[in-house]
Amino acid sequence: MSTSSQSYPMSGGEDLHSYIHNSSYQKAAIDSLQEKTRLYILEKIDLLSLKTGLSTFTIADFGCSVGPNTFHAVQNIIDAVKLKHMKENSLVSLEFLVCFNDQPNNDFNTLFRTQPPSSEREYFSVGVPGSFYGRVLPRNSIHVGHTSYTIHWLSKVPEHVCEKKSPAWNKKYIQCNNLIEEAAKAYKIQFTKDMSTFLEARAAEIVPGGLMILQGQCLPDGVLMSETWEGIVIDTIGDCLMDMEKSELISEEKLESFSVPIYFPQFSELKGEIEQNGSFAIELMQTISHPFQDMHLTNDFTTSTFRAIFSSVIEKHFGEDVVDELFDQLTKKLNKYPIDFQKCKKQMVYCIVLKRNT
Amino acid sequence: MSTSSQSYPMSGGEDLHSYIHNSSYQKAAIDSLQEKTRLYILEKIDLLSLKTGLSTFTIADFGCSVGPNTFHAVQNIIDAVKLKHMKENSLVSLEFLVCFNDQPNNDFNTLFRTQPPSSEREYFSVGVPGSFYGRVLPRNSIHVGHTSYTIHWLSKVPEHVCEKKSPAWNKKYIQCNNLIEEAAKAYKIQFTKDMSTFLEARAAEIVPGGLMILQGQCLPDGVLMSETWEGIVIDTIGDCLMDMEKSELISEEKLESFSVPIYFPQFSELKGEIEQNGSFAIELMQTISHPFQDMHLTNDFTTSTFRAIFSSVIEKHFGEDVVDELFDQLTKKLNKYPIDFQKCKKQMVYCIVLKRNT
Repeated sequence: MSTSSQSYPMSGGEDLHSYIHNSSYQKAAIDSLQEKTRLYILEKIDLLSLKTGLSTFTIADFGCSVGPNTFHAVQNIIDAVKLKHMKENSLVSLEFLVCFNDQPNNDFNTLFRTQPPSSEREYFSVGVPGSFYGRVLPRNSIHVGHTSYTIHWLSKVPEHVCEKKSPAWNKKYIQCNNLIEEAAKAYKIQFTKDMSTFLEARAAEIVPGGLMILQGQCLPDGVLMSETWEGIVIDTIGDCLMDMEKSELISEEKLESFSVPIYFPQFSELKGEIEQNGSFAIELMQTISHPFQDMHLTNDFTTSTFRAIFSSVIEKHFGEDVVDELFDQLTKKLNKYPIDFQKCKKQMVYCIVLKRNT
Repeated sequence: MSTSSQSYPMSGGEDLHSYIHNSSYQKAAIDSLQEKTRLYILEKIDLLSLKTGLSTFTIADFGCSVGPNTFHAVQNIIDAVKLKHMKENSLVSLEFLVCFNDQPNNDFNTLFRTQPPSSEREYFSVGVPGSFYGRVLPRNSIHVGHTSYTIHWLSKVPEHVCEKKSPAWNKKYIQCNNLIEEAAKAYKIQFTKDMSTFLEARAAEIVPGGLMILQGQCLPDGVLMSETWEGIVIDTIGDCLMDMEKSELISEEKLESFSVPIYFPQFSELKGEIEQNGSFAIELMQTISHPFQDMHLTNDFTTSTFRAIFSSVIEKHFGEDVVDELFDQLTKKLNKYPIDFQKCKKQMVYCIVLKRNT
């Protein structure tokens, strides 16, 4: 019942290269927003208006990956709701249901195996397989939706970006780095379409008066991806692929038909899409600096973080045996040409709280 | 939030020995009851009384394993509810949510990968990790619960059955074959306890007026497990393990501390437990013959079916490398001493429809 889309889950399992062990960058941002989220739930959610005789409070994390970040995020929401519930109406005891959503090829086995043991968990836990660019849950079934570091993943590589004969062809670049205008346009169009689908689906699933919390990174208005360190890393991955093509480790044709389905919107673009949808009131829309912003990230850390994010998209296109070589080359290239973090423009961490119109 | 218990999922994945490809015996029984189930839903469920403004109809399959049987079972329920809904009240459109429950170490990845594609599915699908011997879903959240070929799996090997110093020690036998009275008692006590926990949990989860459908196999009153062909196969697996002990492929100590947590109740025992619980009215409680009853099952079929069921319990106790050898020996032994199906007493397939008291 969900729309089909391309799917590149974060690295599953629990090994050295897994997302579980390489998602502390994302965690730092999520943690820094915990208090803010908690306060907004306390302030904005009206338990009494949600439903007469509410006995189950349902939370969904859209694009949860394999943890541990998702477990922290939902626990934070539960803590806030419990406090609110105690203050407002402690006569009926609340049970919590948490819906962990991600693509059907996400590693749910690892998610379930690594979640807090049932004896320590205050909630019933279900896994929801399906692209969040489409409906994945019944209408009016969710009280608080959450998504974190997800919507920069488009549902697919924009049309024509990988077609050599199209004016939108992205050549040997692998991301939207604004060097080819038509390709950048195609990326923006895809983002608009996906964001609209995302919000429409969530508007159906979230109860009137319920909240949708979005966290992630965006570009400040006027800043281009290629001016940020994250953009530079992705372009450097592209450079490594070009080197590998020259060494005939991958074919020219494979390289020319590859782009990643990632688009970091500028702040006002993101805001525009939410307003355009119209089903939600914007209760909070703020950006903060990433807590690691002024730190010099080591090249090993950078490589591991991007490997956990990108390995499945690389594997799917170029084959499994390319991954090790590519990220070895990335480390080498970053060692040779270190990123000057001071000079880079900064992506911002956004925190958005939306309230479903009643 | 569920009780902990031992967990031996059916063989995961999709290979030669997987449950997916070796569960046709169970499927035949489930299929033969489809029409009966459908009729009872049509007759017994009162959609209007379930909930004012019902817009999502929720079905749970407890102990779903990896499919395909679970997909057939839930589709059958959905077909019946849709028909009923059309007849009764077609003003509000119904959405369906299906909760696929099994132990956290069940292969949910395979379950999600092999379920009908979202474009062909009439329901939202969620996976619910947790032992059904305990709560796994919020209270009053399920309209129809279903379980099929599951409750003969106890939550654990009964106490003392594997302790050499206990009077309930099952010696080198691996199941409740009634040769040791105290062991048989321990099995019965565990079954009673588990069934009570199962029904208590379902009573909390199923809405008043909702149905709980149970299918599986039981023994006719007075018939012992060891008199049935299924019991003979399990005893033969035990014989093979004894042979392997003699050949020093497994240790005496390992063998003496092994019994399978399986108990097929007699019909009246099963009925007694439901009546004892008291939360459900018995709307239907019937037995039929298994559709394969008069067929001569080949030894290959028998071996494959039991391997898919038993391999994880064997693996967990004796180690991975024992499984191939054991089931090779089983085929050989069955070839040497063929089961005389005609002479065996028959297990019965039961179909029970319970209605949650309002």
